[in-house]
Amino acid sequence: MPDAPTHLLERVISQRVTLVLKDSRRLSGRLLGVDEHMNVVLDEAEESTAEVTRHLGRVVLRGSNVVVLNAPQGATGKSA
Amino acid sequence: MPDAPTHLLERVISQRVTLVLKDSRRLSGRLLGVDEHMNVVLDEAEESTAEVTRHLGRVVLRGSNVVVLNAPQGATGKSA
Amino acid sequence: MPDAPTHLLERVISQRVTLVLKDSRRLSGRLLGVDEHMNVVLDEAEESTAEVTRHLGRVVLRGSNVVVLNAPQGATGKSA
Amino acid sequence: MPDAPTHLLERVISQRVTLVLKDSRRLSGRLLGVDEHMNVVLDEAEESTAEVTRHLGRVVLRGSNVVVLNAPQGATGKSA
Amino acid sequence: MPDAPTHLLERVISQRVTLVLKDSRRLSGRLLGVDEHMNVVLDEAEESTAEVTRHLGRVVLRGSNVVVLNAPQGATGKSA
Amino acid sequence: MPDAPTHLLERVISQRVTLVLKDSRRLSGRLLGVDEHMNVVLDEAEESTAEVTRHLGRVVLRGSNVVVLNAPQGATGKSA
Amino acid sequence: MPDAPTHLLERVISQRVTLVLKDSRRLSGRLLGVDEHMNVVLDEAEESTAEVTRHLGRVVLRGSNVVVLNAPQGATGKSA
Repeated sequence: MPDAPTHLLERVISQRVTLVLKDSRRLSGRLLGVDEHMNVVLDEAEESTAEVTRHLGRVVLRGSNVVVLNAPQGATGKSA
Repeated sequence: MPDAPTHLLERVISQRVTLVLKDSRRLSGRLLGVDEHMNVVLDEAEESTAEVTRHLGRVVLRGSNVVVLNAPQGATGKSA
Repeated sequence: MPDAPTHLLERVISQRVTLVLKDSRRLSGRLLGVDEHMNVVLDEAEESTAEVTRHLGRVVLRGSNVVVLNAPQGATGKSA
Repeated sequence: MPDAPTHLLERVISQRVTLVLKDSRRLSGRLLGVDEHMNVVLDEAEESTAEVTRHLGRVVLRGSNVVVLNAPQGATGKSA
Repeated sequence: MPDAPTHLLERVISQRVTLVLKDSRRLSGRLLGVDEHMNVVLDEAEESTAEVTRHLGRVVLRGSNVVVLNAPQGATGKSA
Repeated sequence: MPDAPTHLLERVISQRVTLVLKDSRRLSGRLLGVDEHMNVVLDEAEESTAEVTRHLGRVVLRGSNVVVLNAPQGATGKSA
Repeated sequence: MPDAPTHLLERVISQRVTLVLKDSRRLSGRLLGVDEHMNVVLDEAEESTAEVTRHLGRVVLRGSNVVVLNAPQGATGKSA
């Protein structure tokens, strides 16, 4: 497969990403790590709603709650 | 089996597809990658509702949220 | 087992089938493929509600959303 | 174990059974096949509500939607 | 582990048990069989609500719907 | 890992524990057994709401319904 | 992968962490243990809502209910 989902995830390590969760919560942060279940570690994490932004620091998100991970810049280094 | 779902998915790589998610969200984009869990990578992704279209860029969708993937053009090259 | 579910599914390949999904959506189309998770590929797919029919073309349905697959004509060729 | 669930299911093949699904739908039909996930094939299937009975013919039910399978006559031939 | 859940279940075979399901349905019957997924076979099964008791005969319950199995008498024969 | 969840569970065998379930039901009892899915056997089990306490005797709880197991006294014997 | 989620979790053992659960419950406590399913053991656990804080002592949380684990201080000792 030309570009498997887990490969993209590894290529955006250390970039800022935004995650939409099943409960509609929206979290963004610098991606520190990810595994095959889409468990995600974020640093400098923030939870933002229309009204307010809460600073959370380091968080681990359980992959089963993730709907979409948005890596706006794409991957700077394409896989060879 | 004549035409397994994962084979169709691989044959529409690089086409524009539309996904309907369990929370009724509708996302479209160019299909960059997919795996056996239906985790999907889209480029030039857009989320559209009746009122508005949001440009998201590169996204990874967790397969467990996918209901339908619509590849309107079908596969241009049939599997041999 | 005399007639396992996956065998019936393979025997109705290329027939028109109707699927009821967990969100009550109703899709019909010509069955192109199916796998052991009940992921389904339909061609000439249509989504129909009481009011309207939408033509979708080629779709892949994730099996975890399927409640019932209805093959009204049964299988024309019984398994030997 | 004296009487495992899958064994009972195999012994009621070809009897009429009634299934209650998670969405409270109630389907009955002649049991043609079943597998270890409780995926079920019914022939002469009917969906019945308090008001109306719809004839469906041959259906495949995905096991993850099944709550109860009721085999009113029990198994006519007990396992030896 | 001193008393694993599946062992207790095997020891109450042939006793009357009551099951509470995820949809709050309450079923009781004589336990004929059980497997490691908590799929359960009941004989002389009854579904009871505050108002009414329905006699169902032989049923197979899919384990994923079970919340609690209540074996009021405990196990008459303790495991050695 | 210094203190894995299943080890704690084994160390509180025979103590009274309280479980909160996904449907908000609250059950307490003496912990007789537990397995790696968090299926739990309780003796002298009670279900209590704000208004009333029901005595259930011996119960098996399916682990998939458990949210929290509270062992108020902790483990009397620490792992070496 | 540079910093897998389970590694971060092991590095914050014995720190105070806060967990958000699927039912929006919020629990905090000192992390005693964690496994690959994100089953979590907390000591000196507290459940807090806007109005009240309840002291729970030792608890085991089933990983399938966890949305986010927040380790505000990050890991004091980075993995080598």
